[in-house]
This record gives sequence, C-alpha cells and structure tokens, in this order.
Amino acid sequence: MYCLLKCAPLILAVAVCHGWLFGDFVGKQKELDEISLWPLPQKFQSSAVAFKLSPASFQIVHAKQSSAGPSCSILVNAFRRYFEYMFGDLKKHEKSRKKVYDSDLAELQVWITSADPECDGYPSLQTDESYELSVDEPSAVLKAANVWGALRGLETFSQLVYRDDYGANNINKTDISDFPRFAHRGILLDSSRHFLPLKVILANLEAMAMNKFNVFHWHIVDDPSFPYMSRTFPDLSQKRKGAYHPFTHVYTPSDVKMVIEFARMRGIRVIPEFDTPGHTQSWGNGIKGLLTPCYSGSSPSGTFGPVNPILNSSYDFMTQFFKEISTVFPDAYIHLGGDEVDFSCWKSNPDIQKFMVQQGFGTDYSKLESFYIQRLLDIVAATKKGYMVWQEVFDNGVKLKADTQIHVWKERPQYQDEMAKVTAAGFNALLSTPWYLNRISYGQDWVNIYKADPQNFTGTDAQKKLVIGGEACLWGEYVDATNLTPRLWPRASAVAERLWSDKSVTDVGNAYKRLVQHRCRMVKRGIPAEPLFVGHCRQEYMGL
Amino acid sequence: MYCLLKCAPLILAVAVCHGWLFGDFVGKQKELDEISLWPLPQKFQSSAVAFKLSPASFQIVHAKQSSAGPSCSILVNAFRRYFEYMFGDLKKHEKSRKKVYDSDLAELQVWITSADPECDGYPSLQTDESYELSVDEPSAVLKAANVWGALRGLETFSQLVYRDDYGANNINKTDISDFPRFAHRGILLDSSRHFLPLKVILANLEAMAMNKFNVFHWHIVDDPSFPYMSRTFPDLSQKRKGAYHPFTHVYTPSDVKMVIEFARMRGIRVIPEFDTPGHTQSWGNGIKGLLTPCYSGSSPSGTFGPVNPILNSSYDFMTQFFKEISTVFPDAYIHLGGDEVDFSCWKSNPDIQKFMVQQGFGTDYSKLESFYIQRLLDIVAATKKGYMVWQEVFDNGVKLKADTQIHVWKERPQYQDEMAKVTAAGFNALLSTPWYLNRISYGQDWVNIYKADPQNFTGTDAQKKLVIGGEACLWGEYVDATNLTPRLWPRASAVAERLWSDKSVTDVGNAYKRLVQHRCRMVKRGIPAEPLFVGHCRQEYMGL
Repeated sequence: MYCLLKCAPLILAVAVCHGWLFGDFVGKQKELDEISLWPLPQKFQSSAVAFKLSPASFQIVHAKQSSAGPSCSILVNAFRRYFEYMFGDLKKHEKSRKKVYDSDLAELQVWITSADPECDGYPSLQTDESYELSVDEPSAVLKAANVWGALRGLETFSQLVYRDDYGANNINKTDISDFPRFAHRGILLDSSRHFLPLKVILANLEAMAMNKFNVFHWHIVDDPSFPYMSRTFPDLSQKRKGAYHPFTHVYTPSDVKMVIEFARMRGIRVIPEFDTPGHTQSWGNGIKGLLTPCYSGSSPSGTFGPVNPILNSSYDFMTQFFKEISTVFPDAYIHLGGDEVDFSCWKSNPDIQKFMVQQGFGTDYSKLESFYIQRLLDIVAATKKGYMVWQEVFDNGVKLKADTQIHVWKERPQYQDEMAKVTAAGFNALLSTPWYLNRISYGQDWVNIYKADPQNFTGTDAQKKLVIGGEACLWGEYVDATNLTPRLWPRASAVAERLWSDKSVTDVGNAYKRLVQHRCRMVKRGIPAEPLFVGHCRQEYMGL
Repeated sequence: MYCLLKCAPLILAVAVCHGWLFGDFVGKQKELDEISLWPLPQKFQSSAVAFKLSPASFQIVHAKQSSAGPSCSILVNAFRRYFEYMFGDLKKHEKSRKKVYDSDLAELQVWITSADPECDGYPSLQTDESYELSVDEPSAVLKAANVWGALRGLETFSQLVYRDDYGANNINKTDISDFPRFAHRGILLDSSRHFLPLKVILANLEAMAMNKFNVFHWHIVDDPSFPYMSRTFPDLSQKRKGAYHPFTHVYTPSDVKMVIEFARMRGIRVIPEFDTPGHTQSWGNGIKGLLTPCYSGSSPSGTFGPVNPILNSSYDFMTQFFKEISTVFPDAYIHLGGDEVDFSCWKSNPDIQKFMVQQGFGTDYSKLESFYIQRLLDIVAATKKGYMVWQEVFDNGVKLKADTQIHVWKERPQYQDEMAKVTAAGFNALLSTPWYLNRISYGQDWVNIYKADPQNFTGTDAQKKLVIGGEACLWGEYVDATNLTPRLWPRASAVAERLWSDKSVTDVGNAYKRLVQHRCRMVKRGIPAEPLFVGHCRQEYMGL
C-alpha cells in the first residue's frame, strides 16, 4: 500500500497568502481559484466587481487608435485562438443574443501604439513584450507597443476569465501593467535522440505561449540522427543512418517553415542548434571526410571522432552549410554548440598529431578545439548572425564577438561561479543548469526548479544586467512523442514564472495554488500537462 | 548541453546472445529484430523457413475438433483484435486475392481441447493459461485447454508476424509450448488520488493483455475521493467531497460492468480493493458516524480517523456494502486493504479508550485494529469471497482463512524476509515491494524492476510454491490521464516477463533488445509506451 499522509514529500497543506497581491479579494476565494494568473504579472490590481462576458456578443477588436488592423494576421489569428480558449468552439455559439447588458463586458480593444505594429516581423532579443491591460466597463483595453506585447496581454486576459456558479463567463475589474524580467525565456527540445513528430513540436509551442516563453531552442541534430533536411546537402539526412528514416523521420524545408511560422504567430523565436565539432556522429554518414578518422595503433579503426579540424574541406562545408542555415532560420542568433569535445580520437590520429606540432599546440587539444571554433565563428559571423555557444567555448578562452551569448549548463564548478565569470568578462549569459528537465525524481521536483534564480550569484549590477535569461532543457534520451509533453509541463511552467515575473515572486505555497489551476487550464486547452499532486481538474484530459 | 556517451547510465552497447534460444537464427538478425517475443515463452523453437501471410486470404478459424465455435464471443472478439493488430484496419484490405500460394500460411486454427471452453466464464486464480502453438504450412495450430490459454497464444502468434524488406507479412516456422510461471500477474491502478477516465483504464487493460498480465487490481477508492458509485449507498460518491464530482468523476454501475467485461475479453480478472479501516477519509462524507471522531483534549476536534471499530453500526454498514461488492465483482477475491492504520485518532477518543479497557487490550491499539479486521473478514467470508490483504494484517497476527493472499509491499524489514515469513506460515504470498512503479528515477530503471524475483528468498520448495505472483503498482499521487500510460509502459512489461517467463530468463542485454521492439509494437497498437533509451520506432506515436 501507499501512504498519502506519511510520505507526501512536499507541500501537503498549502498555506497561501496573497494579501499583498490580491488585496481586494479577501473572502472571495472562489474567484481567486479561478483566476490563477501564470506567470504572475509585474503589477496587478483587481477588485471584486465582476462583469459578465457573453460569447454571443463579446468581441476582441482592434482599437480605433491602433496602428494594426484586420490585415494583421498575427493578431487576427490570436483573437481567434484566445476566443476559442475562453469560450470553446466558435461554431457552438449562435449569434442569437445581440443585446449587451449594462453589467456586460462588451469587448476587448487591442491598441498597438507604435507606428510599426510588426505584424509581418519576427520577435527578437530586443522585442518589447510589455503591455497594459485595463478591464472595466464597457470595454477592456489592451495597450502594447506592438503585436508581441499584445500576444502576452491576450494570454493574460484569457486567464482572467472564469466561470461562476451558473457556468456564466465572468471577469473582474482589473488593471495590469506587465513586462518580462528577462528577454530570453526558452525551451530546448532535442529531436535527434528521438524524432519528434511535427504535431508534438507544435503542441509544445502552444504550451510555451500559454506560459509566455519566447524562445524555442531547437536542438535539431546530434550524434544519433540528423533529421534536418538540408537543401544544400540532402545526403545529411537522406543517406542511411543520417536521419532514422529519410522520409518519415525528417523535417523537410516545409516542416521547418511551418514550425517557424507557428512560433512567430505566438511571439516565439526559433533558434536552431547545429552543434560542432563534437556530437556530430550522424553528420558523417552524408559527408565523406568531415569527421576525424580514429586510429587504433597505426591504422584507422573504422570509427570516427569530432569534425576534422585540420582540413580546409571541413571549413568549406561549414561555410556552405551555415549559409543555408542563416537563410532558413530568420532569427538573428544561431546556437553553435561547442560542448563536450572528446579528444581521444584526435589524439589517436597521426595527421592531427602532426598538425598539433606545426601549430605549436603541444599536447593541449583544447587549443585545437579553439582553433576549430574560432574559424567556425568567423564563418558564421560572415552570415551576419549572432551566436550562442555552450559554456566550454568561453571556458577554453576562444575569442568571441561582444554580443555572444554564453549558455551555462554545467553543474561543476557551481553554476553561480560560472555566471559570475561569464558576466565579469562582459558577455551575455543564459542559465540552464538547474533546469535540465529531462532529469526526473519522485515527488514535486518543480519546487527546486522554481527556486533557482539566474541572477543569484555574486556580481555587480552591471554583471546582473548581462543575464539575458535562461532555458528549460528537455534532452531526448528518454522522451519522445509518447511522454514528452506531460514530462515538460507544468514543470517548465516553474521556469516560465522565474523568467517572467518579478524577482520577489518566490512564495512556493502561493505558486502551488496558482500552478494547480494553471495546469488544469493547459489540460482544458488540450495540453496533457501532468498533475502536481493529488486532486482533480474540472475537465480532465480526454486524450490518452 | 547533454552528453550521450559519458552519462548514459546503463546498457549502451547491448551485447546480445540468443544462441540457446534462437539457434537457427544465426545471420538472420533482421527477422530476429522483428520477432522479439515478450514475455519470452517457456519453450520456443524457430527456424529460418518463412511463410507469407496475405491479409486478403489469411484467416483465424476455429479448428474442426475445437469445443469452441462461432458463438464464443471471447474468441471472435480476439480473432478480430489480433487480425487488426497484425494487418491493420480490416476494411483496408479488399478481399481481392483469394488464391493461396504454396509458400503461404493460409490460416491459424484455434483448437480448444477441453469440453467446456469457458466462453462465458471468468478467468480465476486456477485458470490454465497454457497453450501450444505450431506454425507450419499450410496451417498454424494453436492448442489450448480453454479460451484463456488461447488468448495468450493469439498474442504470441501476433508477435511472431513481421514485415520483410518488401513490406510483406511473414512468419517463421515455429513451435512454442508456453505457460505462466506464476498464476497471479497484476497491475494496480489507483483511481482515488486522481480520477482515471474510463478510456485510460480500458487502454491499460489492452496493454496488459499485450504483456500477458491477468489481474487488474483496482484500487478504486481511498482518502481523497470515492469514485465508486454504490447502488446501496449512493451518498458515498454523490455527497459533496465523496467523489471529486458526482457525475464527471465517478464510475457508474455501467462503467464498472464495462471494465469487467472488457477485462474478461482479455483474460484479465478485476479485483477491487476497498481498503479499511484506514484510508477511508472520503467514505465519511456519505456515511455519518462511520469514521472515528478525533478529540482534541476533552472535545471532538471536528476531524475524523479510521472506521470506528467499536460501533455495531460500522459492521452493519460493512455487511451491506460488501454484499453489494461481492455481487458487482464476479472475481472470487476482494482486496480488503488493512494497511497503514494511524492510531492517533483512536487514542484521542474517550469512547475508544473505554472500549480498550473493556476488551483488555491495554494500550496496544494493534489489537483493536485486529479486532476490526477479524470481524470484517468474517463479514466478507460470509459472502463466499476469498480475500487479499496488505501485509500488516498478517504482521499483526489476525486470524486468517487458509486461502488468504498476503500482499507484501513494505521495504523494511527486507521484503525477502517477509515473503519467507508469510509462506512459512502457510499463506499465499504476492510481491509488490520492488514494483512500486509510481516511484521514478532518471535513466533505465526498468533493469532493477526486471531483476527482482518473488521467489528470491530463503525457504523450502513448499514455501516457494506458495508464491502466487506479484503486482506492479502505480499509485496515483502524481499520475492521471495525462501521464499514466507512458509512465506504466514499458516499465510494467519488465514485471510481466518476470512473472510469466522461466526463472532462468534474466539476461538484461537480451531483454533490452526485445523490449525495445516490444514497446514499439505497443506504440504501433496505439499505446503511448515511453522509450527505453535513444532510438526510434518505425511508426512513432501519433497521438499527443
């Protein structure tokens, strides 16, 4: 048998205190339960005054003063999406009730204030995602500089709507002024250890938008498989063992486009990672001579190591390859990897040994690694892209462009020290160490995920400002379409709030209460987010 | 970044040796990969001679000598189910190709040998699940004493079919003689901590049949909720907080019937657990006075403890309640729980204190617990049902019927000692301790699950024979419809093989290789079984 009362590892009795936030809500527990904003907005004022919303008459409209109009497909798509989240399938609601009563909220006006609403643009690291939302009769007003802030505000508005005891849609008088604490709030998915069907990627982009994430870090290829279908080098995925299967287990150019557009519609950047010189076993099948031949004694063993750093052909290939990548992916950044280079194969190879002597590297193979990375960075810089790299590249002292983003992931030495070092050197830093969500343990592990803070290290204010955010990483060894989504959500939601909300939002009891409701909201919207603990959702997941 | 090569916790290179089993298969790796029987049959001989199966002409038929015929719905349903597993949707295959070629396998004849095929019966602890399967031209023959063995054999036959390089269905010449090592091979699901929609329960019964499990231990109610809708005491689920919701979060009598019938069709027994006197918080909402009022000093605190053992009304209720249960559930056994009784509430109550004195129990509250259980067992025995209990009931020295099944679950003292004690006392023992699959850890935890053996304790042969099997338990604190199925499968498959196959089947490398294929087979059949490690399935899961 299994004990509930004795073994429950955490938070059984949740003592919640939201007085400071929800001052007007004392004695209104019911509405509060329903609201449960996630992530918590920066500034929030609400009152017990409630308005009714009728699906038959309520509208989301462009404000008259707005620089965006009906041709702004990002907003039109978002209006439809959020209307459906709030009221269900449009078709179910006959437009029979036209009269708007006094106590009704008639509409939400979306007001884009800057001259260019960016309807056809892409979000970027510099994007202003702030918004202001005022819910009052007869209209609610959502004000943002551009579509990206409007998307965040629409999510918040949809979270404010709740059903009363009669099943009627309500929203309370509310004022919100909101903006993200960090500019880079990402999720890494790994489509190499296991191929992830498009459907799974799109569903997770949906869930990301519900949590105000704005970067999809697509770790698209790695040792086990190369599912990215390259136009320039189709053999990379088409040759045996490049991709798991050349038709069923690849992302075609059209698939990639769809992912990027689907993400754009939700204010999410897509940053692809093409990790070299290590983690490239799958590249070797399609490109002869790209990888280093390993030696056993004086003859080649038949196995291969990292990209061969001593051949011009390797750099010619990278030049062409990253030229394609820089065109296919619109984001200003590419993740170049650069982690975990195993030197044993390089060490075994006599040509590499000779090269080491020529270059005066002695026996320090990290110098050879840096030599490769340096040339690669120059190649990528020529495409006008910025780059992200894993922390080893910085640790090895490679010369980096000033705007390089260093991705911290190692547990040792303490990640706080690494964050301090990276920022002391003047580089942008991104944190992932405490957010390797592929690692699982029994019980409520979201609490430690929630408690980690990327600015929690010893450093100056200037250093802290160089922290641009973080990413939750779900490496693919043990996940595929069968279990990825519930393993990621709502654990990644804990990261979402850490990266969006104010630094002071750290009350685990309050977070638990809101997150329970938020995960039920995700379930209602079709995302199989797993439960935090014992309990139920009004509407349980209806898939399998 | 995340390392594949350095951190892979287990079994990267799988050195497989199946010479002893698949002697004829040397150099035929391809077919072997496809076959991957799970759980491994007791006796198995195969050859490289392959026959083709045409979905347009192949048939599963009753053998002429069979005691079962077209009116045997269990078999008719199973023929259809396995035909679809092997060849996909029936409708897709036009019956255009009638001619049977020489190299074809024309049919599978199912031959039930005993006079009563048990078409309308229920499986039981005594059921003979053995079968013999011979695949040779022109017909394969599956021979079993009754439908239950035939179901197991049909699963095996379906696992033998594989596709060759041309996509054609093949099966090799094979002889199998098979039977389970243990008679009780169960899965426990908990529908109280989280409500499990019917769809989830049925899907898991499907998966159980694919793994030759034969007992669904339905831990249907517990402290958090009472979703079982009782005809005699409807208030148990209908009153506020009995079930999570009286309509959407209950199992109606019709739902329960459907579960039992769906399970019967797959040779699976349904054993409900109604755990008392502890774990009964949810019972108290519907039945006034059933639970013990706890005291704070000299006055009731307003909270309640276990079932009140000193009132005749408690026993009157149990008499009526278990009379219903014994009718609703056809199985010969009911699980009565009896675990983890917290004495603090009893100790606080002055009426209970008085009763303890009257009975001469001193301050030993385990005597009071035994007093309750003893009366409960008498009540249930009067319904002619056998019972299963958690080990505490045995540990406390309650007088038990000879055929009582003691369910071992505690980690301390070592479960091996408990298994030895229980069997030394002459009782049937069931093991679950190493198979609490709700407990998760990072990496390939199926290996330790696989290695545990219920007969691995010090005892006589007679004692070993009293071990009737075991159960994989998935307690519901952290699982619901969103994540239950991939968390259970294929980890529970490791338990399935341990309980079915010969004791000597312990090669983890060989098991890994077969289990990888078996989980892909489950995925292909619509079960979102999670991956064991890096890799892919020919057909990935298409749900979300």
